[in-house]
Amino acid sequence: MKKLIKQKEHFLKDMLDGLVIANDDIDIIAETIVVRRHKKSQGVAIVSGGGSGHEPAHAGYVAQGMLDAAVCGEVFTSPTPDKVLEAIKAVDTGDGVLLVVKNYAGDVMNFEMAQEMAEMEGIQVEMIIVKDDISVSEATQRRGVAGTVFVHKYVGYLAEQGMTLKDIKEKGEAVASQIKSIGMSLTPPMVPTTGQYGFDIDDNDIEIGIGIHGEKGIERIQYEEIDCIVERLLGRLLKESQAQSLIVMINGMGGTPLSELNIVTKFSARYLEEQNREVAQWFVGDYMTSLDMQGFSITLLPSDEALLKALQAPTASRYF
Amino acid sequence: MKKLIKQKEHFLKDMLDGLVIANDDIDIIAETIVVRRHKKSQGVAIVSGGGSGHEPAHAGYVAQGMLDAAVCGEVFTSPTPDKVLEAIKAVDTGDGVLLVVKNYAGDVMNFEMAQEMAEMEGIQVEMIIVKDDISVSEATQRRGVAGTVFVHKYVGYLAEQGMTLKDIKEKGEAVASQIKSIGMSLTPPMVPTTGQYGFDIDDNDIEIGIGIHGEKGIERIQYEEIDCIVERLLGRLLKESQAQSLIVMINGMGGTPLSELNIVTKFSARYLEEQNREVAQWFVGDYMTSLDMQGFSITLLPSDEALLKALQAPTASRYF
Repeated sequence: MKKLIKQKEHFLKDMLDGLVIANDDIDIIAETIVVRRHKKSQGVAIVSGGGSGHEPAHAGYVAQGMLDAAVCGEVFTSPTPDKVLEAIKAVDTGDGVLLVVKNYAGDVMNFEMAQEMAEMEGIQVEMIIVKDDISVSEATQRRGVAGTVFVHKYVGYLAEQGMTLKDIKEKGEAVASQIKSIGMSLTPPMVPTTGQYGFDIDDNDIEIGIGIHGEKGIERIQYEEIDCIVERLLGRLLKESQAQSLIVMINGMGGTPLSELNIVTKFSARYLEEQNREVAQWFVGDYMTSLDMQGFSITLLPSDEALLKALQAPTASRYF
Repeated sequence: MKKLIKQKEHFLKDMLDGLVIANDDIDIIAETIVVRRHKKSQGVAIVSGGGSGHEPAHAGYVAQGMLDAAVCGEVFTSPTPDKVLEAIKAVDTGDGVLLVVKNYAGDVMNFEMAQEMAEMEGIQVEMIIVKDDISVSEATQRRGVAGTVFVHKYVGYLAEQGMTLKDIKEKGEAVASQIKSIGMSLTPPMVPTTGQYGFDIDDNDIEIGIGIHGEKGIERIQYEEIDCIVERLLGRLLKESQAQSLIVMINGMGGTPLSELNIVTKFSARYLEEQNREVAQWFVGDYMTSLDMQGFSITLLPSDEALLKALQAPTASRYF
């Protein structure tokens, strides 16, 4: 295995140390929790997290206007409840804490456990579980993927506006339920902590409906040109999203060059236009990755003025 | 070859179309020139460019505070003099145009030819040739690599301040001459327009001193842990850069996940501290890539207050 690492056992620690060295506004507590260096004195605090390997998610979004803390598990591994609890306690201002969690069994269990423990200590905690991955047909089983980053930005903005925990949860959940994503990959991720690829794939095949943890897709097909792939993914997404005006994210999986994401954008724009959909705002880049996987996901979200304003508002995160 | 493209012949066009779709502030003229949608009415205009495959360079830096135009050649191929001339004419406000060119024979020849043609039409044109790649020992032969992006930002800032062409060239050249870079790679880039890899390399080898066009490095060595690689690269760089306080860029080569760039940052910081050097500002991310190559480069620049202010000043480019 060739990776730019020192020891695989220290992958998480080394990565977070590097992130904090280059970003003056954040700090690490309890080894794996990234927090804003200057804690908010009032208002709802936003906490997210999950397994690592999705950089810049989640720690890169700890910044004014987005998250107050990110709890970072080992690669593709949920953080433990005690760490989540520690994050909640570190950032709570007395106005309550909102947890944004991707729908994976381990994450949901551990964040819920932390929520209960925090509530026992008198901290108000609410949770939004993001289930944007439509490649899974059963709605309750849908995974949280790149669309989660829209939720981070949206609830971070609402918290900045001084909204209450109850209202942020309600509004955030309403938006989260409308976010739809699906991804594909050309290659599996190489997991630096094990030296193993997430899956095997032939030189002529691609995976449709992949997860972000090296899970195989729901369908393996022969390589196609990008306009065909885009039509395949957007065709599915548009069945679930009837809105006329959309916010669209073209998310790179970590090893995809920007040139190719731009090409994906072109053919996505063309297909959406053919389907008489408008795009109010594009987000193109690496937002929720899977280590060095080559591939991308598309996320759609119905646009409205208030939502657009929230997503376009400045944030100190350099990754959004 | 599996790439997220439609036709290899249209790689450049499709990529630029996608870039412009997602960025309201820019436009394409003459098929391969990216310009700001709202042309400056006065002041020195900054033009750069070169072969494509280095995204977000160069077109991603066309924005308030950086470039006025980027002339985009085919992948790893210099743009022709007539295109450079067209860009110069499109952005000149009457106050002159500064060309920022990476030191490659084709680029220098074509930009110089365009300069001469523009001067014959009465436009003042100056040029800065960037030669930051220290892996080449003969100073005049040194290639322009990631450090070029610092020059874009610096001269773009000076132009915003209303400085004259002569002064911007002089100051820009003084800074450019102090920028030192060196890169390495784990893998070669896959060139989508040919379907060929830039070079072959064994699973256990890495290349030191690579270029950004799929050129082999100056040295092929067995895979090492990242602290050893960083020491090797920084050891060479520090011999050429005596400054106590440095601005440092850790640049990803296009296929390198952010997690690994953060790990590179950690061990770079550690080594620089051991050598009693201070880092005034870090820049970590994909600035000047080589398609989907996995690897990174380090760029050092002596820090001073005025330079730091220029590099930290806001720009509308989302890639800097």
